[in-house]
Amino acid sequence: MYDLIIIGGGPASVSAGIYAARKKIKTLLITKNWGGQMSYAPLIENYPGFISVTGADLVNKFTEHLKKNELDIKDSLNVEDIKKISDSEIEIKAGDQTYQTKTCIITTGRIARKLNVPGGKEFLGKGISHCATCDAPLFQDKTVAVVGGANAGLGTALELVEYASKVYILETTSKLQADELLQEKIKKINKVEIMTSVKIVEVKGDKFVSGLVYSNGTEGQNKELPVQGIFLAIGSVANSSFIKDMVELNEQREIKVDSKNQTSQPNIFAAGDVTDISHKQIIIAAGEGAKAALNVYDYLKKLK
Amino acid sequence: MYDLIIIGGGPASVSAGIYAARKKIKTLLITKNWGGQMSYAPLIENYPGFISVTGADLVNKFTEHLKKNELDIKDSLNVEDIKKISDSEIEIKAGDQTYQTKTCIITTGRIARKLNVPGGKEFLGKGISHCATCDAPLFQDKTVAVVGGANAGLGTALELVEYASKVYILETTSKLQADELLQEKIKKINKVEIMTSVKIVEVKGDKFVSGLVYSNGTEGQNKELPVQGIFLAIGSVANSSFIKDMVELNEQREIKVDSKNQTSQPNIFAAGDVTDISHKQIIIAAGEGAKAALNVYDYLKKLK
Repeated sequence: MYDLIIIGGGPASVSAGIYAARKKIKTLLITKNWGGQMSYAPLIENYPGFISVTGADLVNKFTEHLKKNELDIKDSLNVEDIKKISDSEIEIKAGDQTYQTKTCIITTGRIARKLNVPGGKEFLGKGISHCATCDAPLFQDKTVAVVGGANAGLGTALELVEYASKVYILETTSKLQADELLQEKIKKINKVEIMTSVKIVEVKGDKFVSGLVYSNGTEGQNKELPVQGIFLAIGSVANSSFIKDMVELNEQREIKVDSKNQTSQPNIFAAGDVTDISHKQIIIAAGEGAKAALNVYDYLKKLK
Repeated sequence: MYDLIIIGGGPASVSAGIYAARKKIKTLLITKNWGGQMSYAPLIENYPGFISVTGADLVNKFTEHLKKNELDIKDSLNVEDIKKISDSEIEIKAGDQTYQTKTCIITTGRIARKLNVPGGKEFLGKGISHCATCDAPLFQDKTVAVVGGANAGLGTALELVEYASKVYILETTSKLQADELLQEKIKKINKVEIMTSVKIVEVKGDKFVSGLVYSNGTEGQNKELPVQGIFLAIGSVANSSFIKDMVELNEQREIKVDSKNQTSQPNIFAAGDVTDISHKQIIIAAGEGAKAALNVYDYLKKLK
């Protein structure tokens, strides 16, 4: 029986793990992978203390720091189910094992939104990507489309122009949503073409993506755009589906937490991007993870 | 007229400054000094990303990071008064100047509690210290007293035994309040003497501290202890006195904030140790500072 199980491997998880271990709470951290969304960040310049660091580097620093502390870690493991037995017992199912704990902290972050059209699932990893930082070099001299005209989309396009011969930006509304400054920058690049009021209806290909079919609302006729890569920058959703109705969620399916990171169940805590906190940032998630662990410590003291 | 004035120079302040500048908010940061309480920390091992760093080093990294960003900074300057004119105008008095701003974030942290007895003020900096990390080397082969028997007091004593010939720990209650592990460690050191149920009534000296007078409740008679140094580890209080009744405070005189770091006045925000947040830690304060700046950004957008 653990005192605490932390679910997740992002900044909130790591911070919670460091704080829990230093408080000598008997802790297990279960995560499918390390870093969460920050692992895709090309450059992080807003985590105080590091003027400029790649996402991958900061993930390494975080996990190295975590592993200096005394706690159990199971990585490459996916949590499938949480069952609350009582205010001092929870069962967590992961892989073919069930783990017992008095409390848990959910720090599973957010997952990138998928393209919900024919071909959208099938070609994921076969031309469709969520991560320009990871995959841009694969598209040297190729034609690619970026789906999404907000900051994330234009940032993705800026990474892709270093490799691709042509970059389309596809935005569903009638104008780009990104900051003016970023729009000015993008519009100066010849190989970028912006298409607004465009809705993707299908992804085509054989083994790999060969094109996409889109409708242009004003004409009402489907057209095909030959591309070898499709980069999605259409936002993310809280990674809370495995929780089912165990704790209260808001309309965006984010976990509702109070100022002590407690959910609607007293021994289930949550921190970071999976919660209803007002802004999603690495430094904010890390602070919330620490606060959650310290509040778990207070909760455990009262149990005894 | 600034969009935002940040008051303070600790982790919440620096983080708010970085985030505000990156959002191109016209920002001024006013602080008396840098780092706040973290500047006294001998070793910080719980700020994710830095396995082990001195307080002074982390303060330098923070201020260097802040200064890479575009904002105005006035340091060595004390804010004396805040006057709210309207929901989009605040006047801040600092030194002989008055600054106008639409919003402000208060991040003034906490200040160490003083010894409220005759001599307690007069000998501050003349034998009385709040900071073993700063001043321990000055007490080579001297006799010193640590006031406070909780974790901070025992931590202070551990630093002092490296220099002093004799270290007394004075605790007002009948037993030490520190973690068991720390107590075991301290009790093994010969030159440390623990005195419980002891209340300081006076600090004596000429130019510098020469001793302290204490009462021992069980005997009711004042005694003198000859010491050359007195280190205070009796906690801290929210640095909120300059705010007067401008915003709502709790019973500990901490500023009440909601989940968006907003105080009872809509254009006055607060973050970090000066607020009623459940735990006071560098990483938590830094997260809160970022969150406050992003909520100020949202607030300013609505003003326009």
